[in-house]
Amino acid sequence: MAIQTFELLILGSSAATPTSNRNPTAQLLNIAERFFLIDCGEGTQMQLRKYKARFQSVNHIFISHLHGDHFLGLPGLIASMHLLGRKNELTVYGPAELEDIIGLIHKHSETQLGYPLKFVQTQHSTKQLIWQDEKVEVYSIPLKHRIKTTGFLFREKPFPRNIDKYKLEKYDVSFAEIHKLKQGFDAVDNSGNIIKNEMLTLDPVKGRSYAFCSDTRYFEELSSDIEDVDLLYHESTFLENKKDRAKQTFHSTAKQAAEIAAKANVKQLLLGHFSARYGNLDEFLDEARPVFPNTELAIEGKMISL
Amino acid sequence: MAIQTFELLILGSSAATPTSNRNPTAQLLNIAERFFLIDCGEGTQMQLRKYKARFQSVNHIFISHLHGDHFLGLPGLIASMHLLGRKNELTVYGPAELEDIIGLIHKHSETQLGYPLKFVQTQHSTKQLIWQDEKVEVYSIPLKHRIKTTGFLFREKPFPRNIDKYKLEKYDVSFAEIHKLKQGFDAVDNSGNIIKNEMLTLDPVKGRSYAFCSDTRYFEELSSDIEDVDLLYHESTFLENKKDRAKQTFHSTAKQAAEIAAKANVKQLLLGHFSARYGNLDEFLDEARPVFPNTELAIEGKMISL
Repeated sequence: MAIQTFELLILGSSAATPTSNRNPTAQLLNIAERFFLIDCGEGTQMQLRKYKARFQSVNHIFISHLHGDHFLGLPGLIASMHLLGRKNELTVYGPAELEDIIGLIHKHSETQLGYPLKFVQTQHSTKQLIWQDEKVEVYSIPLKHRIKTTGFLFREKPFPRNIDKYKLEKYDVSFAEIHKLKQGFDAVDNSGNIIKNEMLTLDPVKGRSYAFCSDTRYFEELSSDIEDVDLLYHESTFLENKKDRAKQTFHSTAKQAAEIAAKANVKQLLLGHFSARYGNLDEFLDEARPVFPNTELAIEGKMISL
Repeated sequence: MAIQTFELLILGSSAATPTSNRNPTAQLLNIAERFFLIDCGEGTQMQLRKYKARFQSVNHIFISHLHGDHFLGLPGLIASMHLLGRKNELTVYGPAELEDIIGLIHKHSETQLGYPLKFVQTQHSTKQLIWQDEKVEVYSIPLKHRIKTTGFLFREKPFPRNIDKYKLEKYDVSFAEIHKLKQGFDAVDNSGNIIKNEMLTLDPVKGRSYAFCSDTRYFEELSSDIEDVDLLYHESTFLENKKDRAKQTFHSTAKQAAEIAAKANVKQLLLGHFSARYGNLDEFLDEARPVFPNTELAIEGKMISL
């Protein structure tokens, strides 16, 4: 039972060369009204408009790596946010060199943004907490691609424990003590008696999680960083008939993505980053589902709610 | 009567912030199967695909200035040309700093193009011939915008004179002498008599011309650089009710664009670079046509053949 929004909108599904109906990689994730933009390929600002997404509500943008199809929409989006009157801080998470590129573009266009733009450098050797607030935490996770690349893992923080209201009626407990119970601590009633947490509380619903993995070659060790996530996006640039090409270009096949999903024991798999050579994407499902049945395609406009 | 192709395809009509149905500036000009891309806003490669334009036939790209809405589609287009196997040289004409930006993007994406990419620096103080072959010549022309900006002028070179075949029958002239007549020279017949050129030739059709002017504030002197062109594209970011805003941001109104068209004695005017604030573009025509009747809108997908 969803107690707060956890919604993913796919803005682009193509690999490096976009096609007439497939845009380069971008996704918009909404967790409890925090809007996270994940990768920002060319045309992302137009895709956000097309799907009537809340453009200026995005305060955090995560860039996996510096291949053009994953970040070339960023300078235009940053500029449009400025031109449309943005005042709120925007933070971009990605490789250090991204700041140099955006800086050079701003220098030569003589752009002075009307809002603070912050860069946070990711590193691709270990999983790392890169942002959190009281409800959500975001990690970067190492991927293996031709240049330094990270995926991103989004998790709801544990929800407070649920108070068993029927049992609570029998106890004389202050509001302050009830708050402690919700956090998992024992409480003290108004007569000074200790009440064990498990006497008055029930397990909360489990926090949901989403892992974004693009671009990467197949490597088994990835599964430990994304274990048990509710939703996994894993690139599948190729089908198995291009397995050698996948290996050579540090990409994955649909079957390999399904194998990672199975090993990591995720609940659902989304495939994307399809090479322009493939017209019929059903073949990706045909290849992945025998290995991992709960697989879908991450195509433009698709919305997945957890 | 057209004797070779002279065709302009509009790929983007929006000012700095694109809308759901207007893309940033880009145009494809085909003169005698030379394909010239003029400006390359974000999403141009997708627009080229959408309109089934001949992507890899573009050998020359002209960038007016370094505001994002005029060049942010260039790195993605350069990359896709490479990924799709291009071998032919591509030349980009624009401000010197464009090479630095593309170079930095290629450095951090570790891109090694499979084809030669050449940059030719434009300067914005005087009209200058920047490219020519036997059929076409291209000039950069100074515009007045917030940062250094040029327009571009495309001209067919003069066609050979037409031989008057009825009159030719009466003369005994070799093929070599006919070639001289076509070039405008007098000829010598097989008996050694001089034949004045005007005795045997007719004026050829006039070479056609297209001037692209975006972005610029209104300035009268522009009209001398684009005098008598067959087709003028002139930006009209605003209507007259935002004349002050136009002046402040170094842009033009529809009426001002029409005034330039009238002063320059052009044959046809195309308006474009419309601010996102305007929904109904007919107002631009209503404002321009009383000043310059032969005015059209440069909207996405429009094809103009001269």
